[in-house]
Amino acid sequence: MYTIDQKRKTPLHVQLFNEIKKEIMTTSNIGDKLSSIRKIANTYNLSRNTVQTAYNQLCIEGYIKNRPRSGYYVIDTSKDIVFEKSTAYENKSKNIKPYKYDFFPARLCKKSFPMKIWKRLCIKALSGDIDMGGYCDDYGEFGLRDQIAKYLMRSRGVRCHPDQIIVCSGFLDSIELLAKTLKDKYNSFAIEHPGYHLARRAFESFGYKIQKIAVNKDGLVLEQLIQSDARIVYITPSHQYPTGVSMPITHRHKLLQWAKSVDGIIIEDDYDSELTYNNHPIPSLQGLDAQGRVVYCGTFAKSLSPSLRVSYIVLPDILIKLLEQPYDTIFPKVSLPIQKTLELFLKDGHYDRHIRKIRTINKKRHDCMKAELIKKLGKTFKIEAQGAGLAILINPSVPFDFEQLKNEAEREGIKLYFSKYSCGDEWDALRMGFGGLDVAEIKEAVEHFAIIWHNSIKKD
Amino acid sequence: MYTIDQKRKTPLHVQLFNEIKKEIMTTSNIGDKLSSIRKIANTYNLSRNTVQTAYNQLCIEGYIKNRPRSGYYVIDTSKDIVFEKSTAYENKSKNIKPYKYDFFPARLCKKSFPMKIWKRLCIKALSGDIDMGGYCDDYGEFGLRDQIAKYLMRSRGVRCHPDQIIVCSGFLDSIELLAKTLKDKYNSFAIEHPGYHLARRAFESFGYKIQKIAVNKDGLVLEQLIQSDARIVYITPSHQYPTGVSMPITHRHKLLQWAKSVDGIIIEDDYDSELTYNNHPIPSLQGLDAQGRVVYCGTFAKSLSPSLRVSYIVLPDILIKLLEQPYDTIFPKVSLPIQKTLELFLKDGHYDRHIRKIRTINKKRHDCMKAELIKKLGKTFKIEAQGAGLAILINPSVPFDFEQLKNEAEREGIKLYFSKYSCGDEWDALRMGFGGLDVAEIKEAVEHFAIIWHNSIKKD
Repeated sequence: MYTIDQKRKTPLHVQLFNEIKKEIMTTSNIGDKLSSIRKIANTYNLSRNTVQTAYNQLCIEGYIKNRPRSGYYVIDTSKDIVFEKSTAYENKSKNIKPYKYDFFPARLCKKSFPMKIWKRLCIKALSGDIDMGGYCDDYGEFGLRDQIAKYLMRSRGVRCHPDQIIVCSGFLDSIELLAKTLKDKYNSFAIEHPGYHLARRAFESFGYKIQKIAVNKDGLVLEQLIQSDARIVYITPSHQYPTGVSMPITHRHKLLQWAKSVDGIIIEDDYDSELTYNNHPIPSLQGLDAQGRVVYCGTFAKSLSPSLRVSYIVLPDILIKLLEQPYDTIFPKVSLPIQKTLELFLKDGHYDRHIRKIRTINKKRHDCMKAELIKKLGKTFKIEAQGAGLAILINPSVPFDFEQLKNEAEREGIKLYFSKYSCGDEWDALRMGFGGLDVAEIKEAVEHFAIIWHNSIKKD
Repeated sequence: MYTIDQKRKTPLHVQLFNEIKKEIMTTSNIGDKLSSIRKIANTYNLSRNTVQTAYNQLCIEGYIKNRPRSGYYVIDTSKDIVFEKSTAYENKSKNIKPYKYDFFPARLCKKSFPMKIWKRLCIKALSGDIDMGGYCDDYGEFGLRDQIAKYLMRSRGVRCHPDQIIVCSGFLDSIELLAKTLKDKYNSFAIEHPGYHLARRAFESFGYKIQKIAVNKDGLVLEQLIQSDARIVYITPSHQYPTGVSMPITHRHKLLQWAKSVDGIIIEDDYDSELTYNNHPIPSLQGLDAQGRVVYCGTFAKSLSPSLRVSYIVLPDILIKLLEQPYDTIFPKVSLPIQKTLELFLKDGHYDRHIRKIRTINKKRHDCMKAELIKKLGKTFKIEAQGAGLAILINPSVPFDFEQLKNEAEREGIKLYFSKYSCGDEWDALRMGFGGLDVAEIKEAVEHFAIIWHNSIKKD
C-alpha cells in the first residue's frame, strides 16, 4: 500500500517513485513483478502518465527493468542510504585563534583596497556588454591583457603584446601552467638557493629534476648555473626571494647569454617590484631580452589585493607556440566580472594612482617598523632584507633561543612568521610584516614583540 | 653635460639618473670615475640628496660601484634597450570569424544569467565586512562552502560537511588539483572509454599510467576495471560523457565495493546533472558511499555561467588528510568578491529558483532541437544522446561524407562541433548545442544545417 497525498506539494510521480523505491529496498525480492501501470493508476486515482514517469525513473536508476510484453521486474534491492552523516567534522575555519599582534608578511591593510572605486567600476562592468552565458577568452579577456601590457611597458619596461599574456589566478596557478607547458621540451629546472619553495614544488610535481643554485650578494651565482645541465631557471632578479638582493645589469646580460646558448628559458618572478621604498624599481629582465628567452611573472596580489586572485605571465614567442596544441589545456581562470572590472581599473588610471598611494603608505610603515626595531632591539639583531615588499627580515646577532621565542609568542598572542617555511627550510629569518598594521599598531606590536625577543636572548 | 630641467614633472633625481645612465651606455668606459656628489650638486644646482639618490639607483642596477673613500666608478656599460618592439603580432582574439549559426554545445543564453540579482548581491557583498587586504580561505570561504554543502545535500543527495569542499576555478582546476594530490599515493588511473579527455590529460601530465575502460549501455564495464590494476577511476555516472548513458544502482554498489577492496578512489564528475529534462536527476554516487571512497566534482559552469569560473570538489576524509602537508600547495583560486556574491546567491534561494528556470527554458530548447532534427533530417540520422545537458548528439544513419559537411559548414558560416575533440578521438558524434539559441533561432539554424547535411549524404 503506497501513501499518495494529492494535497502535498511534492509531485505525484515523485511521491509514487519514493514509495515504490522504499518498498523495493525493504520488502521486495529480485525478480518480483510490479503491478501494471493501469492497475496502479486505477488503485491510486493517478493518470497513467504519472505512473509511467515514476516507473521510468526507477528504470533509469536501475531498480526495475521493463521486459517488453511482460511488465516491470525488480532487478536491484540495494539500499541507497547506507550510513548516517558523520558529525565528527569540525569547522576548522572557525577555530582559528585570534592573535593580538599579527606580523603577517603578505597582506595589505584592509582600508588600502580602493573599495569605492572598485564597486563603481564593478557595476559599470556588469552593466556593459558582458556575456555571462558563454566562456571567456582562454588567455584572459583581450581588453584586460591589453591594459596589463601597457602597464608593464610604462612601469616595468616589459615589452610585450597582449597576445603574449595569460591571465592566471595567482602565482601558483601561473607557475603550474608553466611547469605543465614546458614539460614536453625540458626536464631539468634550476632555482635560487635559498629560493621560493612554491616554484620548486610546482616543477617537482611535474617530474622535473631540480637543481639548486646558490645566491650571493649579486643574486644567483651564474657559474653554478652554467655548470648545471638545467635549461630552465627560475629567478627573482629585482628583489631576490627571500634574501632581498638584486641582480646587477652585468649579470643580467650574462644570464640572457646563457639562455641563448643552451636554448633555455628564464622565468622572471617580479612579485613585488611595485613596492620598493629606497630606490626606483629596477627595470625588468624581460625588457633586456632580445632573444625571447624570458617568461615574466607578475601579480596583483602584493599591490592591489591578495584575495582578488589575479596574476599573469608574459610568454616569449617560442612558448606561445608550445601552448597551441590540438587539444586545449588552457581554460580561463579568472571570473569574467573580475577581469572586466580590473580592466576598467587599469584603463582609467586608477591602478597607477593606487600604486603611488600604497607605496607611500607602505614606505611609512616600513620606515616605522625599521625605526621601532632599531629602537627596541638595539644591537641584538641584524636586518637581513629591507627596503621593499611588505616585511623587514631580521635575525638575532646574539646567542638566541628560537624555541623560547616561539613559545612566548604563542602564549602572548603574537603571531610570528619565519622565512624557512616559504623557502623549504633552506634559509631562515623572522619576517616582520608591516602591510596589515598602521603606524600606531606597528609601535605597539613591536613593543610587545621586543619583550619576548629580549627574554629569548641566551644570557650566558 | 647633463640636461636637467627644474620645471619638468619628472623628479630631479630621476632626470639625473637617466642622463648619467645614457652617458654610461654611450660614451663611458668600464673603470671611469664619476664626478663627486658635491661637484654634480654644485654644477646643476641640485641638493646632495638628489644626486645621492640617483647614484644609489645606478649602484643598485649595477652600472656603477662605490669604492669607500675613493668615489663612484663605472662597472658596466651595457645598453639596456637592445631591440625594438616587434610589430608582427596579430590580435588573435579580434580575428575570430563570426558565424551565422553556432551550435556551441557548452553555453547558456546570455539572457539566462540573472544579472539584475547578481549586481544587487555583488554590491551587497562588497559593502559587507569583506577584507580585500588579506588572503581568503585556501579552500574557499567557509560561508560559500557551507551553502554548496547544503545545496548538494538537498539537490544531489551528496553527504558532506563544508570542510570537505574545495572551491576551484573550473573543472580543469578541480581535476588537476586531484591529480597533484593523489600522485604520491597512486600511480594508475582508469577512465571511461570513450571519456572526457581533459580528465585523462590532467592525470597524464602528472605521470599516471592511463587505463581505458569500455563503456556500454550501463556505463563503465566493471569487469574491465576489476581486471585492471588501477586504483583511481574517473566516471560520469549520472550522464556519461560523451555517450549519455547512466549507471544503474546495482553497478554503483559494485563500483563502491571495488573501491573498498583495492583501497581506491572514485572520482565522480557530476558535470551537468542539474540539466536533465526527461526524468529527475539520478542521485549522486557519493551519497551511496559509506566508506569515504568517492570524490565528487561539480561546477556552476553548466547551470549558472561558464565565465564565472567556479567549480568545487567534495573530498572524502582520507584525501583531506593527504592535503594537510607541511608546505601548503593549495591556494585560494576564486576571487573573494565572486565567492561572497555566489554565497548570497545560494543562501537567498536564488540558485534553486534559477535552476528551475533554466531547466524549463533548456528543456524547451532541447525538445525544439529534437523535433526540428527529426522533421528536417528524417530517417537519415540517429540520436546518440539526448534528454540532458546543452546538446543533442547525433550521427548519420546513412552513408555520409563528413568532409563535405565540414567544408559546406565552413562556407555557409555554420559552426559545428564534434565529440571526438573532447574525448581524444575515441568516439564521434555531432554535438547539436541548443543552450545559446532561442526556439526561433534553433528552427532557423537547423533549417540551414539540414541543407548541408543532405548535401553530404553519399548518393550511390
